[in-house]
Amino acid sequence: MVTLSNRLRQISPGGEDGWDIFNRARALEAQGIPLTDLTVGEHDIRTHPTILSAMAEAAHAGQTGYAATAGTADLRARIAARVSERTQVPTTQDNVLVVPGAQMALFTALMGALEPGDPVLIPDPYYATYPGTVRAAGGRPVALVTRPKDGFQPTRAALEAAGDARAVLVNSPNNPTGAVYGPETMHALADAARDRDAWLISDEVYDTQVWTGAHQSPRALPHMADRTLVAGSLSKSHAMTGSRLGWLIGPADAIAEMATLATYTTYGVPGYIQAAGCHALSLGAAFEAEISAPFLRRRQACLDRLDRQQVVRAIPSGGAMYLMLDIRGAGLSAPDFAARLLDQHRIAVMPGDSFGRAAAGHIRVALTLPETRLLPAFDIILSFAEEMRP
Amino acid sequence: MVTLSNRLRQISPGGEDGWDIFNRARALEAQGIPLTDLTVGEHDIRTHPTILSAMAEAAHAGQTGYAATAGTADLRARIAARVSERTQVPTTQDNVLVVPGAQMALFTALMGALEPGDPVLIPDPYYATYPGTVRAAGGRPVALVTRPKDGFQPTRAALEAAGDARAVLVNSPNNPTGAVYGPETMHALADAARDRDAWLISDEVYDTQVWTGAHQSPRALPHMADRTLVAGSLSKSHAMTGSRLGWLIGPADAIAEMATLATYTTYGVPGYIQAAGCHALSLGAAFEAEISAPFLRRRQACLDRLDRQQVVRAIPSGGAMYLMLDIRGAGLSAPDFAARLLDQHRIAVMPGDSFGRAAAGHIRVALTLPETRLLPAFDIILSFAEEMRP
Repeated sequence: MVTLSNRLRQISPGGEDGWDIFNRARALEAQGIPLTDLTVGEHDIRTHPTILSAMAEAAHAGQTGYAATAGTADLRARIAARVSERTQVPTTQDNVLVVPGAQMALFTALMGALEPGDPVLIPDPYYATYPGTVRAAGGRPVALVTRPKDGFQPTRAALEAAGDARAVLVNSPNNPTGAVYGPETMHALADAARDRDAWLISDEVYDTQVWTGAHQSPRALPHMADRTLVAGSLSKSHAMTGSRLGWLIGPADAIAEMATLATYTTYGVPGYIQAAGCHALSLGAAFEAEISAPFLRRRQACLDRLDRQQVVRAIPSGGAMYLMLDIRGAGLSAPDFAARLLDQHRIAVMPGDSFGRAAAGHIRVALTLPETRLLPAFDIILSFAEEMRP
Repeated sequence: MVTLSNRLRQISPGGEDGWDIFNRARALEAQGIPLTDLTVGEHDIRTHPTILSAMAEAAHAGQTGYAATAGTADLRARIAARVSERTQVPTTQDNVLVVPGAQMALFTALMGALEPGDPVLIPDPYYATYPGTVRAAGGRPVALVTRPKDGFQPTRAALEAAGDARAVLVNSPNNPTGAVYGPETMHALADAARDRDAWLISDEVYDTQVWTGAHQSPRALPHMADRTLVAGSLSKSHAMTGSRLGWLIGPADAIAEMATLATYTTYGVPGYIQAAGCHALSLGAAFEAEISAPFLRRRQACLDRLDRQQVVRAIPSGGAMYLMLDIRGAGLSAPDFAARLLDQHRIAVMPGDSFGRAAAGHIRVALTLPETRLLPAFDIILSFAEEMRP
């Protein structure tokens, strides 16, 4: 009997993979059982009709054939202008590769950076796909465990003590913690990459969701544009998750070589989706603020509620559509806490353990439901933690 | 200075890569120089408005969030029903993985089949992306050179004499030759895969464009469903090239494992495109016949013209949107023939050398322009060959 490659099997090792609560929530929903689902990093609104109309118009106007595999000139230029404006790093369309979503940008960046077996340093907690993406690209993920007391930010000392790496994979604002890395952390990460002659791969998909401090792209630090690959997307900024429209930013020669990979994988992105992306970007900063505003508002309402009790604490965070809560005071492990919360109250949250080792004792609450549903559920989470307290 | 991986650089070795004529044609077009472009495997029509309307309706109805990474249940079921009906192999949605285009299906299949360095046997001539796709997935392409006198079909003797392989990559109807592999060839290929305990990867994107004989899917041969992975797509059958909607068919357990790869690469296909695909499939066989009819008609008109001269001969072919012409009688290499044809007559065709070694002395003519443009250009190709004859 012919078998699948070990490589494929090892991308996503079986067993307890942190998605147990998520999968149980999906199963309950499939049975029609009402649920307050705070697991998913996706807006509670749909893509704006004006963007969808732009897509339909482009399709009906004939943009239905093969598009240039690196992206249309129009979209690449608009993305370049946006990145130039937001980071002050001169960026042209030759620095931009359009891909079907930031996840494909990360895969492409890792395929470009790694020889088989190369180590990749990943601050832990991390977005759940990172280790598997590194393995899919033939590399070896190495978690750099951060501490709650450091706000889950990697320290210079820890980075200096870490082993060799061919790439450092960074995500700020961070999923799952919401941490926004300030200049000190980013400088330490940049130095860690430079000291190892490694690539810095920066996932910046939450860069329009920064509530305190400012977004710092490591590409904008001195001498870093030549070794930084930035993954971006319209998913979170423009509520276009399902359209799979993202990009990779990097040195022009690296982007040109990585564009060839698209010929052998996705063969480009639909032209009408790229036209929709052009229209979305043309809507400007006011539109983006409108998309992100609910998360800031909900975050504040949740933080206000935390002030009224002593068991659950928020870790210091400044961005993204999540709150990471320290529930160690409740005396349960995070998976147990989440499982019992789901069983007893039909509220689904992600255990911190789903995102590496560092966030044990924490849960991630996605702020992705309207206040009328989020806040009553949040109150139940707090009172449940109080009840559980030993 | 940090460098890109050798692996990426080796996917697509530089230098003369067979795309010289194609790239020169693009450059002329970009300068506004009128050209008869017979290089591109893409319809001269756009995607039908009824399919685009179905897409727009699904998008406006809210299918803009993350879709299931393996594909929507509706589309997987429709593809399974189609494959069952066309091949008589029982197929359920568990045998179907929806991916953004058949190219991604091939990449996924190869990632699933190969350990790094594994050899993949590819009948030559082959579709131009095959060797790079094998290399992108970490494998080693091994060309099996076929002969014009065999109609560019691999023989049992050649297959038996070939070396070890972890996968055999098959394409019928064939791009570039138009060859349709009959039962004898397919049985030989199936035996070659079975003898090596290898996967048979079958690219069947032209399966609605069969003019003589019948399409034979190797998955339908005895005991082959367990080791065959079929790449399919709506690109050619429904004139949806730019929508990037394809699938991979295989054993349910293999499909389930390969679906995990999507989590780390494309993260699925837009739901509204999948809805468009459902609508496209609902249009039935009459619609598909309408899409493929022009290629049959144009092929016959070209073959009629070939009967009136002696220099250029068509190789026996039975499908796809191309004619492969033997121009050895003109006394020029195919790249020289194509270059002079482009210079003197502004007609662009692909030299057979673009598709491996076996089709040297041949050119591929894409039947992808209306007769009013195709046939005068075809007449010029024939008279040009006559002029060149020593």
